[in-house]
Amino acid sequence: MSDRTTIGVGMIGYAFMGRVHSQAWRSVGAFFDLPLAPRMAVLAGRSKERTEAAAAQLGWADIETDWRELVKRDDVQIVDICTPGDSHAEIAIAALQAGKHVICEKPLANTVAEAEAMVAAAAAAQGRSMVAFNYRRVPAIALARRYVEEGRIGEIRHVRAQYLQDWIVDPEFPLVWRLQKDKAGSGALGDIGAHIVDAAQFVTGQNVVGVSALTETFIKERPLATESAGLGATGSTARGEVTVDDAALFIGRMSGGALASFEATRFANGRKNAMRIEINGSLGSLAFDFEAMNELWLSADGGGFERILVTEPDHPYVGAWWPPGHGLGYEHTFTHEIKDFLEAVATGADPSPSFADGLRVQRVLEAVERSAAEGSRYTNVED
Amino acid sequence: MSDRTTIGVGMIGYAFMGRVHSQAWRSVGAFFDLPLAPRMAVLAGRSKERTEAAAAQLGWADIETDWRELVKRDDVQIVDICTPGDSHAEIAIAALQAGKHVICEKPLANTVAEAEAMVAAAAAAQGRSMVAFNYRRVPAIALARRYVEEGRIGEIRHVRAQYLQDWIVDPEFPLVWRLQKDKAGSGALGDIGAHIVDAAQFVTGQNVVGVSALTETFIKERPLATESAGLGATGSTARGEVTVDDAALFIGRMSGGALASFEATRFANGRKNAMRIEINGSLGSLAFDFEAMNELWLSADGGGFERILVTEPDHPYVGAWWPPGHGLGYEHTFTHEIKDFLEAVATGADPSPSFADGLRVQRVLEAVERSAAEGSRYTNVED
Amino acid sequence: MSDRTTIGVGMIGYAFMGRVHSQAWRSVGAFFDLPLAPRMAVLAGRSKERTEAAAAQLGWADIETDWRELVKRDDVQIVDICTPGDSHAEIAIAALQAGKHVICEKPLANTVAEAEAMVAAAAAAQGRSMVAFNYRRVPAIALARRYVEEGRIGEIRHVRAQYLQDWIVDPEFPLVWRLQKDKAGSGALGDIGAHIVDAAQFVTGQNVVGVSALTETFIKERPLATESAGLGATGSTARGEVTVDDAALFIGRMSGGALASFEATRFANGRKNAMRIEINGSLGSLAFDFEAMNELWLSADGGGFERILVTEPDHPYVGAWWPPGHGLGYEHTFTHEIKDFLEAVATGADPSPSFADGLRVQRVLEAVERSAAEGSRYTNVED
Amino acid sequence: MSDRTTIGVGMIGYAFMGRVHSQAWRSVGAFFDLPLAPRMAVLAGRSKERTEAAAAQLGWADIETDWRELVKRDDVQIVDICTPGDSHAEIAIAALQAGKHVICEKPLANTVAEAEAMVAAAAAAQGRSMVAFNYRRVPAIALARRYVEEGRIGEIRHVRAQYLQDWIVDPEFPLVWRLQKDKAGSGALGDIGAHIVDAAQFVTGQNVVGVSALTETFIKERPLATESAGLGATGSTARGEVTVDDAALFIGRMSGGALASFEATRFANGRKNAMRIEINGSLGSLAFDFEAMNELWLSADGGGFERILVTEPDHPYVGAWWPPGHGLGYEHTFTHEIKDFLEAVATGADPSPSFADGLRVQRVLEAVERSAAEGSRYTNVED
Repeated sequence: MSDRTTIGVGMIGYAFMGRVHSQAWRSVGAFFDLPLAPRMAVLAGRSKERTEAAAAQLGWADIETDWRELVKRDDVQIVDICTPGDSHAEIAIAALQAGKHVICEKPLANTVAEAEAMVAAAAAAQGRSMVAFNYRRVPAIALARRYVEEGRIGEIRHVRAQYLQDWIVDPEFPLVWRLQKDKAGSGALGDIGAHIVDAAQFVTGQNVVGVSALTETFIKERPLATESAGLGATGSTARGEVTVDDAALFIGRMSGGALASFEATRFANGRKNAMRIEINGSLGSLAFDFEAMNELWLSADGGGFERILVTEPDHPYVGAWWPPGHGLGYEHTFTHEIKDFLEAVATGADPSPSFADGLRVQRVLEAVERSAAEGSRYTNVED
Repeated sequence: MSDRTTIGVGMIGYAFMGRVHSQAWRSVGAFFDLPLAPRMAVLAGRSKERTEAAAAQLGWADIETDWRELVKRDDVQIVDICTPGDSHAEIAIAALQAGKHVICEKPLANTVAEAEAMVAAAAAAQGRSMVAFNYRRVPAIALARRYVEEGRIGEIRHVRAQYLQDWIVDPEFPLVWRLQKDKAGSGALGDIGAHIVDAAQFVTGQNVVGVSALTETFIKERPLATESAGLGATGSTARGEVTVDDAALFIGRMSGGALASFEATRFANGRKNAMRIEINGSLGSLAFDFEAMNELWLSADGGGFERILVTEPDHPYVGAWWPPGHGLGYEHTFTHEIKDFLEAVATGADPSPSFADGLRVQRVLEAVERSAAEGSRYTNVED
Repeated sequence: MSDRTTIGVGMIGYAFMGRVHSQAWRSVGAFFDLPLAPRMAVLAGRSKERTEAAAAQLGWADIETDWRELVKRDDVQIVDICTPGDSHAEIAIAALQAGKHVICEKPLANTVAEAEAMVAAAAAAQGRSMVAFNYRRVPAIALARRYVEEGRIGEIRHVRAQYLQDWIVDPEFPLVWRLQKDKAGSGALGDIGAHIVDAAQFVTGQNVVGVSALTETFIKERPLATESAGLGATGSTARGEVTVDDAALFIGRMSGGALASFEATRFANGRKNAMRIEINGSLGSLAFDFEAMNELWLSADGGGFERILVTEPDHPYVGAWWPPGHGLGYEHTFTHEIKDFLEAVATGADPSPSFADGLRVQRVLEAVERSAAEGSRYTNVED
Repeated sequence: MSDRTTIGVGMIGYAFMGRVHSQAWRSVGAFFDLPLAPRMAVLAGRSKERTEAAAAQLGWADIETDWRELVKRDDVQIVDICTPGDSHAEIAIAALQAGKHVICEKPLANTVAEAEAMVAAAAAAQGRSMVAFNYRRVPAIALARRYVEEGRIGEIRHVRAQYLQDWIVDPEFPLVWRLQKDKAGSGALGDIGAHIVDAAQFVTGQNVVGVSALTETFIKERPLATESAGLGATGSTARGEVTVDDAALFIGRMSGGALASFEATRFANGRKNAMRIEINGSLGSLAFDFEAMNELWLSADGGGFERILVTEPDHPYVGAWWPPGHGLGYEHTFTHEIKDFLEAVATGADPSPSFADGLRVQRVLEAVERSAAEGSRYTNVED
C-alpha cells in the first residue's frame, strides 16, 4: 500500500448515500489491488455539529460546512457528491472547474438542461467524471452484460424491467423531500425508474429510443414532515401536496429493435427493493431480481432457467471477496463502483457510466414525462 | 347418477381444445355433484375418417361432418365450440337460435362486430352461453378473486400481467393458422393477451378503461406449413407473410383507478406458458404464475409473500379432488369450467364469463390495436 | 379403439386410492395408444349401497360386495387392489391363483412375510403383477431416472430424500386406521417412507443396503374416530393408543457406495405433500419436490441448478398430454402407471415396479424398524 | 467516537478468516454505537514479508511474527484467533492467562480435551471469551431464534439441518490442510457440521443429546498440494491420504424431544454454501438457506411458507444498515459478532456463543465420530 499514490477524497452529504459511499471508500483498498490509495480526507455538511459526528463515525479526517470550501482544498482530488439532485449540477460543475475528479450520485440532475451543462463541464475538464448508477456493479448485472456481449442470448426481443418498492403505501407517511418536485425532480420515475432505464441500456448495449407512458400520484396530500418529530410522527395535522409521481409505467422501443416495458412504483405492497430485469433474446433469456441479488437466471438453448449463484471467482468483481456461495450485499455495489472509478482516474480512461450516460437516462425520463403529459403518445427520446 | 337428468353434448373440433374439453366432459361427473349428467353425444369435424378416429379415442358416441347437422340434433342440448375464432360467431349464433346452450372457446370472436352479434344472440336466446376463459377456473386465480372480494389486499393500485411463451422464436417455425390474421384474428394479443385481460378484470372486479399499446412482428415471413410435412419440416422453400403480432405490450387504467401493465408474447425464450399476474393493493398483494399453477402468493399486512399451496379442501374447486399438496393440472381448469356451466344451465343463472364478458375483452383488444396503430396514444375502451 | 382387444378390470376399494385409480382407468385410453382397451367392469366393496353409489359416480359397470366374487368373474382379467395393506396379500394371491393380472397399491404388504408370499405367488402365476409406486410415473422422477442412466450426474455420492406432511399435527386429530398398526402396518414409515425408498432406488438404480434409524410417536393417544362423526368431530372423549410411528428418520448406504438420508413424517407443519429427493453425483445433481411436481432441477458441469419444466414432448409420458408449460397433476401419475401396466400385460413383460421391487422396499422398512428397536445400530437390509 | 474508550485488537492469521475479521473490525464502528472503539493494533503471522503485506492491505498498524509476542503486548486487549483448529487451544489459553479477551474461530478446538482445557481457562480468566460461530449472527438465523423464543412455532418436533458444499468433488483437487486430520481435526464434520449443530442448538434453545452417525471419505487419496504450485496445479504426481471425512450424516434427538437430522458434505455438486435449517413445530415451521441469506421462511397457523425478507429495521442487527430490501452479505455476520463481543467485553457479560457453547458442539462432534466408529449405534452426547 505504501508504494501506491494516495489520492484525497472529499464527500458532500452524509445521509443514506453518504453512509454507503463511506463504507466503500473505507473498504475498497482491502479487497482490490488499486492503482491509487484513497484517503478519506474531508466530509462536507451544513451543520458543523452533525457533520463532525458523522465524520467521526464514518471515518473522515476533517470537515467543511460549505461544499465550496471542500472543492477548493488541495488535499481533495476526488469530489463525491451525495446530496439530493437539485444541487448536483452546481457542485459537479464547480468541482470539475476546480480540476477535481467527480463521482456524482444519480440521477445526474433534476433536469435535462442541468445534465447537459454537467456533460459540457465534464467534456471541458481535466478530471474524470462518473454518475453513480451502482446497480451496474451488482455482479449479477455485470454478468448479464457479459453474457449479452458474448451473444449467449442472441438478438434481443424483449426487455422487461420493474423497480418495485412499498415504503409510501401508508397515506400517513409524511411529505419527505423525495415527494417534493423542487428537491427531487420527480418521484418514483427519477429515483428508481432511472436505475432500471440505466440497467436496461447497460445490459443490452442499446438505448431506449421512444416511449409511451402513464404516471400517477395515488395519494395527493400527505402530512408535513417536521424535522424534530421525524418520519410518521408529525403530531401536526398540516398537510401538503405531493408534487411527484408515485408510479410511472412506460413501454417503448430499444435502438436494436427490442420492445421494452418499464415500471417504477413505490406502491407495490410487499416488494421492498424489487429491482428486476428480464431480457428475452433469440437464443436465450436472462432474469434478475435485486431482492435476491446474488442470483442470475439464465435460460439458454431453449432450456429452463438456471439459477446461477453469482459468487464464483470468475464472475465480475467476485474474485476479490469470499468463496463460492458466500454472498455479497447492497454496499458492495458501491465498493465496485469506486474501484472502477479509481482505475479510470489512474488511467485517464472514461469511467462508465459517464455523465453522458447519465444524460442519456435523463433524456429518457424527460420523454416519459412528455408522453405522460400528452395522452401517452409515443415520444422519441432526443439525442 | 341414475336419478340425474342426462344432458347431451355436441362438440365441434377435436384438436388441442377438443381433446382437453373431452377430458373435462368425461371426468366432471366423477368428482362433482352435478345437477345434470353430461352425455358425450356427438363430435363434429370435417373429415369423416379423422372425426371417427377422434370420437373413438376421446369417447364421443357419434359424429357429424357438418356442424350444422350437429346443431340440429335432438340428442344435443349443449354445443361446445372448439374451432378457431373465425367460425365462432356463425356457429354460436346458429346454436343459440336452435335453442341450444353454448360454451365457446376464447377469444369470443375475431372482431368486435362478431362478438356484438353473439352477445345479441345470447340475449335473445333461451339457452345459456359461456365463453371459455378457463384461467378463471385455476383454483389459485379463483382464490385470488376471493381474496380481492374479501378486501384482503385493499384498494387496488397496480395490475401487472404477462403471458409469456416461446414456441415461435425459431424463424423456421412454419406459418401455422395461428399466425394468419384471417384465421386467428390476431396473434399473441388475441390468443394469450385475451386471457390476461380477462383474468385481470375477473380478479380485480374492474374493467380496463383505456390503453396505450405497442405491437410488433419480429419475424415477418415464415416457411409455409404443408399439411403432410407437419410443423418445422416443410421441405419446400416457399414462405408467406406473418399477418399477426408476435408480441403486444400495453399499459392502461382500470375502472377503479389502478394502473395496469400487460404483455403478451411468443418470443420470451425459456418461458413456456408463463401466464402471470401480480396485483398490488393498499393492504397487500397477490402474485401468480401458471407455470406453478398450484401456488398463489399473498403478501398481507406489509409482510413477505406467503406461498399458498392451493390444494386445501376449502380452496375453490379443490375439495372435489385430492388431499392437500396433491396438485392439479392444466386440464382441471376445463373440468371446473364445465361444472360451473352445467350448474348455470340447470339453474338458469348467467354463466361466468358470459358472452358479454367475452365482448368486453374483445373491446379491450380492439382498443389495443387502435392505440398501436395511432402512435400508442391513450385509447378509451368503448362500452 | 374398436380393433383393440378389450380387457376387463375389477377394482377393490373405492376410497381415496379407488377414486384416483378410477380416473386413470377412465382416462388412459384417450391419451395413450394402448394395446388393450380397459373396461371398467366391476367394483367391489363391503357395503352394497355405498359400493353402488361409488360405482355410479366413478363409472364402474357392476359391483360385488365380496372381493372373492370379483376375483372369480370371467369379465375380470385385471384385479386392481386399493384396500389397506393388511388385506393385500390375501387378495393378490387369490387373484394371481385365479389367473388374473394384479396391480396392487403400496406398500406391497404390511410384513415381509406377506410380501414374500406375494412374490412367490407372482412367480408361480401366469398373470402380470405390479405394485403401485405411482411416484415413479411423475414425469420429473422418470426424467431424473433417465438422466442418471445417461450418466449426466456421474457416480452417485448422496441421496437425500424426505416425505413431509402435516395432517396429524393437531393432537385432537382422531385415531383413523392409518394410525393403527394392525391395519396400516406402520405409520409414516410404510405410508410415505416407502415411497421415498422406492423412488431413491428407482432413480439411482441402486438398492438401500443398510440403515440406521430413529422413529417416534409424538402424540401417544388420540380421540377415537367414530364413523358417524367423521374426522375431527368425535364428540366422545374416548381415546385410544396410537400404535404406529409419527415420524421415521434413517441414514444408510446404497449398493453403489452413496450415502443416503431419509425422513418420513406427518409432523412437518406447513409441508403438505413434500415428497422430495436430491441426488448428488460426481458430475452433477438432481432435485425434486412433489409440491412443484412439474419441475426437475438439474445441476450439471458444476453450474447452478436449472429449473426444467417437465412439460416438453420428449419428456417421459408428457407427449401424450398438453403443450409445454401446461402442467400435469397428481392423478396423471396413476394414468401413466396403468398405461405401463397395460403394455406389460399385453407384451408379457415384467411390469416395473414388480412385486419383487415391492418386497425390496419392504425389506428396507423392516430393517429400519429393527434398527430403531435396537439402538439405531446399522442394520443390513436382507436380500 | 472520541469519548469512547479505545481497545486494542491483535489478530493471529490473515487467510480467509483473517480477511473477513479485518473487514468486521474496520467497519463495525461506522454502523453500531459501540461502548468501545476497536483499534486494529497488531497482526501476527509467521512470514514477516507476508504478514507486513497483509497488514498493509487489511489495515493493521503493526505486525508480529510470533503470536506469543502479540499476546504479551500492552496495546492488545483483545486477541482474535483466525488460525487452523490445531493451534486454538494453545493460543487461547495463553491469551486468557495473559489477561486478554479472546475471540476464537470455530471449531473451538480439534479435540474435546483441548476444548475442555479452553473452557477451564476461560472460567479462570478475567477476560471475556467467545467462539466465532458467525452463523448465529445471520439476521435471518437470529430472527428464527426470536420466533422460537416467542413460541410462534410451538413445541419443536423436527430439526432438519444440512451444510452442503461441492469444492472437492474433483478427485484431482489437492490435499490441502483442511483434508488432513492433524491440522483440521476432522473434515466436513468439524468444518461445516459444527456450524449446523451450533445453529440447531441456538435456534431451538435445545441441545443435541444423542446421535447415530455415518461418515465417509469418497476420495481416499489426492495430489499433494505444493505451496508454490497452488491449488490444483501440482505438477507432481505424488499423492497423499485423505485423513478426514468427506461427508458426515447423523440423526439424533434434541433435549426437548425433537428428532434431528444433520448432513455435512463437500460432495453436493452444485451446492456452494447451502447451510440450511428447517424446524417444524406444533404451531408452525421455519426454513433457511444461506445461499439466500437475507430470507427466512415462516409457516404459521397451518398456512403456507412466507418469504420474510430479513431487511426490516426491527429485524436483528438490520437497523444499523440499509433500507428494506437492500440485503447484507456474508461478512456482515462477522461484523455483528464483533459488535456483540465488544458489548460483552464492555459490560462483563458472557458472550454468546461462549467457549462452553463451543465445547458443547465439540461433544456432539465427538459423539458423531464414536457412533460412526461403532456401527452407527445411538451414542449419548456427554455433558
